[in-house]
Amino acid sequence: MTVAHIDLGLDETQFPGINGPMRFRPETSGPLNALAEALLRGPHSMTPGERELIAAYVSGLNECRFCCASHSAFAAVQLPEGMPLVDQVHADLDSAPVTEKMRALLRIAGAVQETGRKVTPAMVDAARAEGATDIEIHDTVLIAAAFCMYNRYVDGLGTLYIDDPDRYLDAGQRIIDRGYVY
Amino acid sequence: MTVAHIDLGLDETQFPGINGPMRFRPETSGPLNALAEALLRGPHSMTPGERELIAAYVSGLNECRFCCASHSAFAAVQLPEGMPLVDQVHADLDSAPVTEKMRALLRIAGAVQETGRKVTPAMVDAARAEGATDIEIHDTVLIAAAFCMYNRYVDGLGTLYIDDPDRYLDAGQRIIDRGYVY
Repeated sequence: MTVAHIDLGLDETQFPGINGPMRFRPETSGPLNALAEALLRGPHSMTPGERELIAAYVSGLNECRFCCASHSAFAAVQLPEGMPLVDQVHADLDSAPVTEKMRALLRIAGAVQETGRKVTPAMVDAARAEGATDIEIHDTVLIAAAFCMYNRYVDGLGTLYIDDPDRYLDAGQRIIDRGYVY
Repeated sequence: MTVAHIDLGLDETQFPGINGPMRFRPETSGPLNALAEALLRGPHSMTPGERELIAAYVSGLNECRFCCASHSAFAAVQLPEGMPLVDQVHADLDSAPVTEKMRALLRIAGAVQETGRKVTPAMVDAARAEGATDIEIHDTVLIAAAFCMYNRYVDGLGTLYIDDPDRYLDAGQRIIDRGYVY
């Protein structure tokens, strides 16, 4: 079964979304996975759940269904508040019960999703006033930028989206167990 | 001298644009460089100059001055037609004297720059009709997506842009000599 714009040489129902192109082109999937691992799971002052929440939020703004479903699930399985919090962030960042630091960082991520030039010194000052470090601000910008890439990769190739929440939760458990390695 | 939103711990006039954050955060610059190397310089049916032209075109659409100046120069020093062709592509893709295959691929890249969902089967069929392979279509989508990341990374951190064409041409020669490694 092929719905993608190119012949990925595999059964897309088994390898939906980014999984197809990642297998199609191992020369690029190595760096793409290494980047996700460093950004979302490497040693950090922000938890993996918090970083996945940034990835999920940007994927939602980009309306990339596969990435939004995936990283929302990956955030939910790693955040104590689970999917309800993720849903609230998607629905209304201003009122979602996240820390003020996380809200300020998510606002920076939302600006990056439009264009890097939308990030203002005032946004950065607001994050810093809530305790965000330079590394946290850097990584927020790069996570948001990276998901503007992953989202376009998945949708630009017209890959298959499967609407099955349990699959994304299962994939989240595999990320916890094995990381971003295929 | 610091103009960036965070303290990169270096002299930005010596390390403008992406060079500052790449040195600030080696944990992520490794994968970022490896991805650029695979996409723009790895073994391929498209020349490095052709692939840099896609990077330059997308960076221009994203209005990222540093990336546009850099990759326009990197394309110019590796294409027989040099900077005049790069300038024509930026000015008007429809009339630029590129091959019809390259024009079709650049149109796909331009769609990806907006959102992956703008890539249509008709655009892909047009590229294929001009001889584009699945790998070439895949890599065009991923180059365009990747520069939507690099451009946001550079501008989202408010890095310094230096308006000195010779520096970008010199950097292009270093890329030819040493590749995307810092």
